[in-house]
Amino acid sequence: MAKKLVVQKYGGTSVENIEKIMIVAKKIISYKKKGYDVVAVVSALGDTTDELLGLASRISKVPSERELDMLISTGEQVSMALLAMAVHKLGKEAISFTGAQVGIITDTSHTKARIIAINARRIHEELKKGKIVIVAGFQGVTLAQDITTLGRGGSDTTAVALAKALKADVCEIYTDVDGVYTANPRIVKNARKLDRISYEEMLEMASLGAQVLQARSVELAGKFNIPLHVRGSFSEKQGTFITKEVNAMEDVLVSGVTLNKNEAKVTICDVPDKPGIAGRIFSQIAKNNINIDMIIQNVSRTGSTDVSFTVIASDLERALKTIRKVVKNVKAGGLTFDRGIAKVSVVGIGMRSHSGVAARMFKALAKKKINIEMISTSEIKISCVVRKKRGEEAVRALHKAFALGRK
Amino acid sequence: MAKKLVVQKYGGTSVENIEKIMIVAKKIISYKKKGYDVVAVVSALGDTTDELLGLASRISKVPSERELDMLISTGEQVSMALLAMAVHKLGKEAISFTGAQVGIITDTSHTKARIIAINARRIHEELKKGKIVIVAGFQGVTLAQDITTLGRGGSDTTAVALAKALKADVCEIYTDVDGVYTANPRIVKNARKLDRISYEEMLEMASLGAQVLQARSVELAGKFNIPLHVRGSFSEKQGTFITKEVNAMEDVLVSGVTLNKNEAKVTICDVPDKPGIAGRIFSQIAKNNINIDMIIQNVSRTGSTDVSFTVIASDLERALKTIRKVVKNVKAGGLTFDRGIAKVSVVGIGMRSHSGVAARMFKALAKKKINIEMISTSEIKISCVVRKKRGEEAVRALHKAFALGRK
Repeated sequence: MAKKLVVQKYGGTSVENIEKIMIVAKKIISYKKKGYDVVAVVSALGDTTDELLGLASRISKVPSERELDMLISTGEQVSMALLAMAVHKLGKEAISFTGAQVGIITDTSHTKARIIAINARRIHEELKKGKIVIVAGFQGVTLAQDITTLGRGGSDTTAVALAKALKADVCEIYTDVDGVYTANPRIVKNARKLDRISYEEMLEMASLGAQVLQARSVELAGKFNIPLHVRGSFSEKQGTFITKEVNAMEDVLVSGVTLNKNEAKVTICDVPDKPGIAGRIFSQIAKNNINIDMIIQNVSRTGSTDVSFTVIASDLERALKTIRKVVKNVKAGGLTFDRGIAKVSVVGIGMRSHSGVAARMFKALAKKKINIEMISTSEIKISCVVRKKRGEEAVRALHKAFALGRK
Repeated sequence: MAKKLVVQKYGGTSVENIEKIMIVAKKIISYKKKGYDVVAVVSALGDTTDELLGLASRISKVPSERELDMLISTGEQVSMALLAMAVHKLGKEAISFTGAQVGIITDTSHTKARIIAINARRIHEELKKGKIVIVAGFQGVTLAQDITTLGRGGSDTTAVALAKALKADVCEIYTDVDGVYTANPRIVKNARKLDRISYEEMLEMASLGAQVLQARSVELAGKFNIPLHVRGSFSEKQGTFITKEVNAMEDVLVSGVTLNKNEAKVTICDVPDKPGIAGRIFSQIAKNNINIDMIIQNVSRTGSTDVSFTVIASDLERALKTIRKVVKNVKAGGLTFDRGIAKVSVVGIGMRSHSGVAARMFKALAKKKINIEMISTSEIKISCVVRKKRGEEAVRALHKAFALGRK
């Protein structure tokens, strides 16, 4: 019988110092002893990536993205080498690989590359020799041998892609919380750990602000039906399984409440009310690689309308540059922006077959006199933009309204 | 006419912070503006390599050398990316490469690998596009794609090997001193900068303790007759040219005086005085990869002798382990060791054709009542072991005796 293979991903907080690296090494070895082949994917130590970005920003506000990837990919190379040494120290054989060495081939979109292929030959060879294989998360290499990175949280995607390429039996994501919660426990005291959640719900939650997993990794896991187990690095408890939808999940109306405080609202005022004008606005914005989230177009009474939308707060400066040009092009009246917003969302597969979720959400917010500024919905989520300072209060109100807390 | 090509190497102190990186970027660009193609080789920022080694040593006293190379090779990757960003910031195009990307192929001796080939195709391509090429010093890659490093000072060797592979017109070594001096200016106040020195002399001086260049890089430059120019990173002055011997050099008796305080003396006592026994001792030591420097065998009067030799101080612990076994094997009486020594040397091609250098050296030391414990000579150098605490005084005495100071 073939050996069972586990891919484990350890985030930056799990390897932030030598003591924690030794604990992770022990955990890896415990799986080896249980008879598993183990491939560990590691992030950079603690805040290393931010520190490196800080160095770059002292040189240039818009550093070359190729060189940025060259720079920040060193973070994982440090942690994987240290982790391999820690495993050796504890008496087992390990070997570490960069994304390039292990054949994680990506496209050429530096700082947000997508994996297009993995050549797992070298990993299989080393596993066959009985070694624990440690792989740098977050990074890959183009066909021209340029180093790329996969964007924030990209190590999750590395782990899932490796699990797929290696046909792993399990993909475990170790993090500083012990699973996926109904809401951020720092905001909601009685938030409950979920035993199980569907890919779709997790994808919405990740996109909406739950920082436990990179959204793309969930997408990839769902596409190839790779079960994920999100759990705590320093705990033995079972965490949250992320799997395909099972019938029982539909009985739950709402699985979780999320809060995203990292968006800003932009309003283009007095847009001439002509057919096709919204298309012109948003295609020009998209051409400049600015991601738009929610969009609202106010009803026109005077022959012109206001168009509002949200962007990621850190993109705002760049977005405004583009949008100022757009305002001129479409002969709009002007623009305003607002950093003081937060997006609160409820997510649940149950919404598909149950009505009344939106009504219950709006009522809960109204009861707390929290004003709703924008609304957007999908099949399994409803998001409302509220004032940023009321965001956490809104989460607590919704968590209670949908009875998500521990009994 | 083909463009002139310069390879420039910048050491760790030349790129120890963002301000200095910007200065180096300006210097590189000034060459580009003069019409040169430029390939810059960089070391890790300041003390990065030592900091990384410190992390490893907290995990294991004997970390895997493969993983150690994986770890410390990140240092140059950081500095080269930052330097490329700095060049961009100043308006010129630059691209950085790791040793692996640029095809610096080495043998598999991790932490002290030797370059066996360089595939310069990618560099030529980028130079043709008008880009400044920045290459990580100190590192290479094996044919199996494992990352290697070239040993302390290995960036010098990277620069020389690249100069050879690219058929560069000049190879400049930028450092924190502005050239090669007759003695360490920190020890001898009136030490004089040399305008020119031969490969052979520089090789001896580097091996004997002058830290300005890695000995192997000088060997390589001499072998392929690549002129080196050692000069200050933050100065415009001409430094020291290291070239093949020219006739005028022979008129100079002694070019420099060096001091090495990083050796220790080991004595094996009461070695049975039998033919071949010294051979047995030193072959067993060599087998354990311990480099021996000077050797003295005392004349036997009682049927047994004492054998003394020096080793690099940092190798002493490891050497003693081996030597204890050797003592048993050859049935010697015992062993002693002594960290309190220093080696002072005079170097000069002129010695070949002039006699009396040794006599003048011994006389100068005797005049200061500095006791000579061991002596070794080569065609162009004489070394004496003295007490460590008298080492600097010895250097000053010899510098004066051979009239090396500024007039």
